[in-house]
Amino acid sequence: MKLIIAVVQDRDSNRLSQALVRENIPVTKLASTGGFLRAGNTTFLIGVGDDQVEKVLDIIRENSQVRKEFITPHMGGDTQEGGSCPVEVRIGGATVFVLAVERFEHF
Amino acid sequence: MKLIIAVVQDRDSNRLSQALVRENIPVTKLASTGGFLRAGNTTFLIGVGDDQVEKVLDIIRENSQVRKEFITPHMGGDTQEGGSCPVEVRIGGATVFVLAVERFEHF
Amino acid sequence: MKLIIAVVQDRDSNRLSQALVRENIPVTKLASTGGFLRAGNTTFLIGVGDDQVEKVLDIIRENSQVRKEFITPHMGGDTQEGGSCPVEVRIGGATVFVLAVERFEHF
Ligand code: NI
Ligand code: NI
Ligand code: NI
Repeated sequence: MKLIIAVVQDRDSNRLSQALVRENIPVTKLASTGGFLRAGNTTFLIGVGDDQVEKVLDIIRENSQVRKEFITPHMGGDTQEGGSCPVEVRIGGATVFVLAVERFEHF
Repeated sequence: MKLIIAVVQDRDSNRLSQALVRENIPVTKLASTGGFLRAGNTTFLIGVGDDQVEKVLDIIRENSQVRKEFITPHMGGDTQEGGSCPVEVRIGGATVFVLAVERFEHF
Repeated sequence: MKLIIAVVQDRDSNRLSQALVRENIPVTKLASTGGFLRAGNTTFLIGVGDDQVEKVLDIIRENSQVRKEFITPHMGGDTQEGGSCPVEVRIGGATVFVLAVERFEHF
C-alpha cells in the first residue's frame, strides 16, 4: 500500500479527478496554494496497492503534465495592431510524492 | 512516532476532534472533498507515539465508522401518503493511513 | 528525498513561505485548523533532498518557533486605570514531521 500525494494546477484538477474515478481509484482533494505552480492548486491524496502505483502515475502524467499552449491575449483599449498575436505559455505540471503506508484501515 | 492521516465525513469531524482532544491527542484538520465519501469531508493529521496508534484507531473507529441510520424524508408539497416512511441510509466511514515518521520536531 | 509536513500559525505563514522561496525551496500550503495551535494555522508540504532537511528545519525554527511577546490590551469603555499594562503572551510554534519519500516525480 502506498499513499500518493500529488499537487496539480486547479485547471487540471477536475480532469484528473474524473480520470481516477473512472478507474475506481478513490481520491481525496485538498485546496492548496504556492509551490512552483503559481496559481491555485489542488493536493490529491490517493491510496493504492503497490501494483497500481505505475498506473496512477501514468494517469497523473497524462492529465496534468507541463505542456505549451497558445493563447491569444486580449488587448485592452485601442491598438494600432489589427489583431493580437497568439503567445505560447507553459501550463500544467504536477509534483508527486509516493510514500510507504505502514497500515491502512477502512472503517 | 507515526503520522495518522484520517479522512472522515464532515458530520463526524467535530465529534472525532473532541474525542481526540479529551485524550490530549493534538489534531490538525484540513477541509477536503471527494473520495468514496461523497459529501464534504475532513482530513485529520495526527502525530502519535507508536504505542498510541491502536488507541487512536479505536477512537477514529468509534466516532466515524460506517453505520446505518433511519431518516424520515420530508415530502415537499402535497402527497396522498398520510406520512413519510423512514428510510435506512449508510452514513459515516473513515479512510486511515498510518505512516512512519523519520523525525519529529516541535519548535 | 524527504517530505516535510510543517504546521505553523497563520501569523507566521507568510514569513516562513517567503524565507523558503528565497532559498528556492518550493512549498505547497494548505489551510488548516486545530492542534495545539489554537488559532488558524497553515500546513506546509515541502519536498527536499536529504541534505537539505537540516536547512529547512532551521528556516522553520527561525520563522515560527514559540516566543513571548508583550501586547498592550485595549480596555473597552472607561476604566479607573490611566493606561493598560502590557501583558506577555506566547505566540508561534510549529509541529514538524519528516517522512521518507519512496519516489518523487515532477511532470
Ligand atoms: Ni481570446
Ligand atoms: Ni424529519
Ligand atoms: Ni494596543
